[in-house]
Amino acid sequence: MTRVDENQQLFDYERCVKASFDAIVPVLKRISALQHEEGFEVQAQAIAREQLGFGLPAEILEDAWVNQLDMRRLFAWCLFETYRRFCDEFFTEAPLGSVEEEQAFHTFIQDCGFHTLDVSPCADGRLAHVIRYVLRLPYRAVRRKSYAGAMFDVDDSIQKWVETEMLRLREGRPNDTDMPTRYLKVAVYHYSSGDPDNQGCAAHGSDATRAAQGGLDQLSAFRQAIENSFCCGASIDLLLIGLDTDTDVIRVHVPDASGDMGLERYLDADEVRKQTLRLSAYEAEARITELVYATADNVAPGMAKLISRLIANNFSQIDYVRAFHGEHYEDIGHAERFIGAGIGFEEVQLRNLTYFAYLDTVEEATQDLDVGVSIFTKLNVSHGLPIPVVVRYDYHGQVPGARERAIKRCARVTDALTARYAKLAESGLLHTLQVVRDCNVGGRIEVLACSVNAQATQEARG
Amino acid sequence: MTRVDENQQLFDYERCVKASFDAIVPVLKRISALQHEEGFEVQAQAIAREQLGFGLPAEILEDAWVNQLDMRRLFAWCLFETYRRFCDEFFTEAPLGSVEEEQAFHTFIQDCGFHTLDVSPCADGRLAHVIRYVLRLPYRAVRRKSYAGAMFDVDDSIQKWVETEMLRLREGRPNDTDMPTRYLKVAVYHYSSGDPDNQGCAAHGSDATRAAQGGLDQLSAFRQAIENSFCCGASIDLLLIGLDTDTDVIRVHVPDASGDMGLERYLDADEVRKQTLRLSAYEAEARITELVYATADNVAPGMAKLISRLIANNFSQIDYVRAFHGEHYEDIGHAERFIGAGIGFEEVQLRNLTYFAYLDTVEEATQDLDVGVSIFTKLNVSHGLPIPVVVRYDYHGQVPGARERAIKRCARVTDALTARYAKLAESGLLHTLQVVRDCNVGGRIEVLACSVNAQATQEARG
Repeated sequence: MTRVDENQQLFDYERCVKASFDAIVPVLKRISALQHEEGFEVQAQAIAREQLGFGLPAEILEDAWVNQLDMRRLFAWCLFETYRRFCDEFFTEAPLGSVEEEQAFHTFIQDCGFHTLDVSPCADGRLAHVIRYVLRLPYRAVRRKSYAGAMFDVDDSIQKWVETEMLRLREGRPNDTDMPTRYLKVAVYHYSSGDPDNQGCAAHGSDATRAAQGGLDQLSAFRQAIENSFCCGASIDLLLIGLDTDTDVIRVHVPDASGDMGLERYLDADEVRKQTLRLSAYEAEARITELVYATADNVAPGMAKLISRLIANNFSQIDYVRAFHGEHYEDIGHAERFIGAGIGFEEVQLRNLTYFAYLDTVEEATQDLDVGVSIFTKLNVSHGLPIPVVVRYDYHGQVPGARERAIKRCARVTDALTARYAKLAESGLLHTLQVVRDCNVGGRIEVLACSVNAQATQEARG
Repeated sequence: MTRVDENQQLFDYERCVKASFDAIVPVLKRISALQHEEGFEVQAQAIAREQLGFGLPAEILEDAWVNQLDMRRLFAWCLFETYRRFCDEFFTEAPLGSVEEEQAFHTFIQDCGFHTLDVSPCADGRLAHVIRYVLRLPYRAVRRKSYAGAMFDVDDSIQKWVETEMLRLREGRPNDTDMPTRYLKVAVYHYSSGDPDNQGCAAHGSDATRAAQGGLDQLSAFRQAIENSFCCGASIDLLLIGLDTDTDVIRVHVPDASGDMGLERYLDADEVRKQTLRLSAYEAEARITELVYATADNVAPGMAKLISRLIANNFSQIDYVRAFHGEHYEDIGHAERFIGAGIGFEEVQLRNLTYFAYLDTVEEATQDLDVGVSIFTKLNVSHGLPIPVVVRYDYHGQVPGARERAIKRCARVTDALTARYAKLAESGLLHTLQVVRDCNVGGRIEVLACSVNAQATQEARG
């Protein structure tokens, strides 16, 4: 049942993007070694253009002879430039998108009895590929909001539910309220099969049971809030999924007839896979469905259909990891390249590329950000490299003033970040890039400001 | 047309509440003079009980002999206790509420073509009575969210619009979508006729034109956002009102047929009053309506009806000020007793009692809070008295977890406030009271924590 061609495409894309980020350190090492040689600037530019595909800012290179090359700034500059190029490619070439698949998926989930799929994975970078890779879903058809420990904001979800139901009632989008479909909220927690005590979820102290319980509690709170706030039988459906970040195997906590889930009542996709390996595709599908029904009492048919699909999809990802990485990923721990903070980041569909936190304000998201900064303190700061943070707000361009408000938000959040992590920022160990994007046009990102340049300007003035 | 009885009731209530706050300083002065006398504690308690109606915390009095009485703490404690008693009276005795009036008003605004009245006045305490006193509206029937300079958050308003339309479509609340009614957003800016350059709106540099323009721009941005984000002719109605905080006279910027308003095209309630003084009530009403229609082209009949009512209502308030205060208020400047920060404060319907800022986070509301702190630096800190801040979140008790989330928010916002105004807080010049309230039950406030006690506890420990 594995989609071999798709796996190859996904792998080529992943390898290519990660290679562009991973080229930065070796190239900067080479350039560093040359910094006191004659003709340094010309040599450095030649190496950068050849190896990275872009030139370096002249003013950083020019100053190298005085003290030494400012590697922190140069590293941050290269990382942000690589990010920008990665975004441009994503939004102009749509390497992971397919409009047909998106439409087919909308029909499929409505057949299953859902009009919205709202997923909150953990903010951990090892889950950033959960939609497009692990679950093989079209990313544009799924709402994804990440929070540390998958502990999503209940009020934010209520607000989204209200908006969704309003659009259905008022404009028949995505379907009319005559259709008996519901809003489905999914939380994805994670654990590490190979090193459970160290490589699990940082927000839950690497404790898989606590992580699962946290997600389940948040889901229940959301459902109760909807049921108690609105009349006429308002409710939602819930689904809890666990992810083994070593192997990308999922476990699905199958809800029973009343929508309740148990921490111990789940179906492990790899177990199912073993039981279906020798079957024909048709038999395998039937067997998956049978196993889903056997996990909980009177599973709703639509929910069973969706879960069966998710498990079958996950087979491809399990094979993906085996084929390209072996028994498990080599980087079972954190290896994110940057932090993403704000609203947007549709382009980040790759594992261990980004730690990202969905946020309106630093004040409300300190837990998410502290977890991210502590991860990057180990990854980067301990090696003398800065933490690169992309602050990003997507906006709806058809609304006058929306771009201006997004720009203000970027600046406010950047200020708050710089204030909260003042010591890191002052010593050049935290750099920020401010970015907005008109998500209605579907165009490129717009770079507003960058701490690397701000510093340069300040120095020039000082 | 003046409601003489209502004026007397409103005045008795205002005088009584303010007297309870204003008794604090004279009582503390008397107590201060006694602090080194024998039997001080007994005397102080007797004075406080007699003059303020409550005893003082023994542990503050007990320590007076060592250094001297901690007047900052004692002042904050008395103020918060007075606030708590004021709230309890408000929520148990409903001195300003009338269910019949509320229902009649709902019918009336629907007749005018509106299903929601959402008012954003300036956060300035001299506008805190705008709903119940200046416009004589039932406060529970009107949404009030205050922002410095009336510069309300457009995204927050969009969210409220979405929720409102969803409830109409889904539950027929407050009316069905068959009824051709719209959402009306009102911004109230202000100016001072007596001292325009100093006692106008602090957020707009005491410039009445800038204040009016600010409100108008924000209203237009909100309407455009609704029109561009939703289809099927979605729109809202807008109204801009100016308030002379010396006399409580309003000016209404009457919208024309297309809903547009002009900065110079307004009707001054006092001018209208002069033209109707000698007319019978019936003739006066007709004359008001005539003047409303004469102010702009083809005013919509429902809008004209609402504005005529607001102007007639304002007559009572103009007479209120004349009867009880003379040509203008004595306190034409700031004289707020405390800052209110958060969501709630339904009980604050009195002029110059509270500077209040509607906020989710300190990060987003720094402008509002900075204006408030600068006002209180002049009012209190310059006399050695602390700034009392009530941090308050109302919640819907029928939603499980809502109370816990409100409590967390209180603590988060209090921490952020204390961090932002650290110097004031450290020197005992900023005190906070944390309060939540279940607004579904309509009950009393629940006091969670108070910096006065926290300090006491810390000292006891240290």
